[in-house]
Amino acid sequence: MHIIVVYDTAAERNPKILRTCRRYLHHVQRSVFEGQLSPAQFTRFQRDVKDLIDDEYDHVIAYTLPPGAVPQRVTWGQERDAPSDIL
Amino acid sequence: MHIIVVYDTAAERNPKILRTCRRYLHHVQRSVFEGQLSPAQFTRFQRDVKDLIDDEYDHVIAYTLPPGAVPQRVTWGQERDAPSDIL
Repeated sequence: MHIIVVYDTAAERNPKILRTCRRYLHHVQRSVFEGQLSPAQFTRFQRDVKDLIDDEYDHVIAYTLPPGAVPQRVTWGQERDAPSDIL
Repeated sequence: MHIIVVYDTAAERNPKILRTCRRYLHHVQRSVFEGQLSPAQFTRFQRDVKDLIDDEYDHVIAYTLPPGAVPQRVTWGQERDAPSDIL
């Protein structure tokens, strides 16, 4: 299924959430990731995210689309700090 | 159709993009909005966003879902600066 993840986490946890998201998804904007995950991968992703965030200070949303549904994407401008695999 | 908008804009343009997104969508995280728009509303939204961003420094993605498709949403934690209608 197609997943879009957005997060707003405290600065000290940003590198960890970034690394976790990168293990599962593509980096498309500063704190936005997307990709295709199986239900089992999504279960592991949820466990990993839950383990590293602080519920009092962080906020993560994962949108999961119905099976087979792929979103269209309209983009304006360019990412300032181009996402890459180098941390 | 269901729309999810994420943006990463230069600080000086944040208030304007925030106000524009709020005219059309619900604020769900610092730089994330979502909601239902008609094709005509989405056309106006696109024009408004295009008019206010600087293509060299800003980045905006609008995901549009296939008609009838509504994403499921898994959320962890809470938004630190709770979205509100007050700027």
